[in-house]
Amino acid sequence: MRIILVGFGVVGQNLVKLLLSRTDDIYARYGMKPRIVATLDSKGAVVCPSGLNLQRLLEVKRVYGTVAAYDDRYEVGEQEKQYMDSTSLEVSSSDDDDYNNNNNNNRVEEIVRSVDAEVLVEATPTNLKDGEPGLSNIITAIKHGKNIITVNKGPLALAMPSLLELAEYNGVILRFSGTVGGGTPILEFAKHCLKGDRILSFKGILNGTTNYILSMMEEEGFTFDEALNDARGKGYAEADPSLDIDGLDAAAKLVIMANWIMDLKITMRDVRFKGIRDVSLNDILEAKKHGKVIKLIASCDESRRLSVEPMLIDKGEPLCVNGTLNAVTFKSEHSGELTVIGKGAGGMETASAILRDLIEVRETMSIGMGVGLGRS
Amino acid sequence: MRIILVGFGVVGQNLVKLLLSRTDDIYARYGMKPRIVATLDSKGAVVCPSGLNLQRLLEVKRVYGTVAAYDDRYEVGEQEKQYMDSTSLEVSSSDDDDYNNNNNNNRVEEIVRSVDAEVLVEATPTNLKDGEPGLSNIITAIKHGKNIITVNKGPLALAMPSLLELAEYNGVILRFSGTVGGGTPILEFAKHCLKGDRILSFKGILNGTTNYILSMMEEEGFTFDEALNDARGKGYAEADPSLDIDGLDAAAKLVIMANWIMDLKITMRDVRFKGIRDVSLNDILEAKKHGKVIKLIASCDESRRLSVEPMLIDKGEPLCVNGTLNAVTFKSEHSGELTVIGKGAGGMETASAILRDLIEVRETMSIGMGVGLGRS
Repeated sequence: MRIILVGFGVVGQNLVKLLLSRTDDIYARYGMKPRIVATLDSKGAVVCPSGLNLQRLLEVKRVYGTVAAYDDRYEVGEQEKQYMDSTSLEVSSSDDDDYNNNNNNNRVEEIVRSVDAEVLVEATPTNLKDGEPGLSNIITAIKHGKNIITVNKGPLALAMPSLLELAEYNGVILRFSGTVGGGTPILEFAKHCLKGDRILSFKGILNGTTNYILSMMEEEGFTFDEALNDARGKGYAEADPSLDIDGLDAAAKLVIMANWIMDLKITMRDVRFKGIRDVSLNDILEAKKHGKVIKLIASCDESRRLSVEPMLIDKGEPLCVNGTLNAVTFKSEHSGELTVIGKGAGGMETASAILRDLIEVRETMSIGMGVGLGRS
Repeated sequence: MRIILVGFGVVGQNLVKLLLSRTDDIYARYGMKPRIVATLDSKGAVVCPSGLNLQRLLEVKRVYGTVAAYDDRYEVGEQEKQYMDSTSLEVSSSDDDDYNNNNNNNRVEEIVRSVDAEVLVEATPTNLKDGEPGLSNIITAIKHGKNIITVNKGPLALAMPSLLELAEYNGVILRFSGTVGGGTPILEFAKHCLKGDRILSFKGILNGTTNYILSMMEEEGFTFDEALNDARGKGYAEADPSLDIDGLDAAAKLVIMANWIMDLKITMRDVRFKGIRDVSLNDILEAKKHGKVIKLIASCDESRRLSVEPMLIDKGEPLCVNGTLNAVTFKSEHSGELTVIGKGAGGMETASAILRDLIEVRETMSIGMGVGLGRS
């Protein structure tokens, strides 16, 4: 299975590490040989139709800061001659954290058009304003008949119904397991584990940063600002934490869940959301007196109303998890309330969700082609 | 899809109610028309190759106490003539709670041999001594090429490796979702949601009765006997609660999980188990002082050691659920700890697990036959 990996940040690098460490096992268990035939970061790209050397790719990124250095600057010994057919494309100037949209999209289009691959993995940073560069990358891939796996929430939050439709129309598979819950298979649980039953509603803690802040306020008596600084210090909050704190990140995940699990056709505009800036230590201590806690809850109720807001919940509820954990409780028609809990983020965790999607794409392709699970 | 339903107690009746309430929806969503062509309880059987009238079946059971009365005693009006082709077989004497093994097995064999059906649903009471009558029923069905769905833990706890092998050898599907966690899809979660990842170990609260008793001791300060009586009063404990209290029920579920999820080949004899009889109120109060609780934990550790025993766990752990809830925490290689929580029992919940298995059997059959998902 040939993969174009767009975005070579924490998740992209962890995916490569994961594929490296599991090569034999993935082949033995799933008959799948994933090869990365092209990858790009904000500074450039490298293409190798026979498959990039993953160990070298990691090393080049570490040493030179961009995958574009893959074959130019690396010292080539006898054993590396096989990789000489790779070509790299460098960009003159661009910041590592700041994808240059036009350049990036043009380069992705060039690669998608010229390189044979079954799947494009979209792992550029999430942007909830206009979804770029992920949105254009996904549309380009769909139009060129590539299956897509994205861990980028932006394009889905803003245009999931259209993207699913476009993918179906073009006969490609679009998967996004890693966009909700990191490695915790929340979407799979709802979609595959409850066959025959019906999910009536769900509610969840979908953002680890805000859950950490609220947990520290409750457990340690921190004020909001103290808890936010603590979260920053531990690397749980970004320099600009507004996407988390104002509820946008949770709302984006709610959009993805509602489309996928409840078959709604909605985008961010359909979610009423409110963050945790106004939650005071006093509110939390008052709730605590009554055996309650305040959590930022994303919910889809039985009338399909979608909201993200701080809510009081019972301390004894399975949903009531602390720290950076995520949790979702599904109310089903016949099996009662079912809760799934796990880490909501993490590079390796999210990479494991990509691998899960790769296996599913592979299996779906095999069934679709009417053949057995041949090996490729 | 033609079904032989063996056992018409709480779960069997709830399955019929579920099929009745969801007929159109199941056809629309899964292209499946489940028909019960034969069923039997401890007092007799009824066969109708074109499909029993489910509404009438429930009514006959309610009024006469056995499905054998289906066509003999019921007043037949004009509109019921279509059901006149059914035949019933009565047994002279046997208690409703006490399946007469030889009679039951002979009758099952007679039905399996003479009635066309794709699936046998085994829903007789669990027996952890010799697995009967379920064990013989399952073997009979396998030998006659019927797929099997069982909610009966006994046969699996005592002979799961052989039964899986026998089923594979005979080309039939054996499923048992409802044996662990009632309607909570614990087995599905572990088997299907973590593709590409690896489960290293797991631990869980698999028995609702003992969890209720321990929760009441901790929350209400009840002694063990007081809590047991309370559980009996609420219908959570049997007259003879030893299967629950001595850890056998949890051990049986652990055997099923270890075989299915970890690919071990083990039976009850390989599990070291200890119940909760020796847990005193004092132990629990002492633990509480240190933020801990005592739970009956079934576990499979990284060395594949299997045990059921009362253990101290942190009150803040996701696994720490109260009341009759069940919970399992899986430790995965790449996605960290993942916890699933839900009701562990209940007639309708377990029936929903059977429906889930029916859909899976149907889908597997369709793939196996190399055809699309035709409707039947």
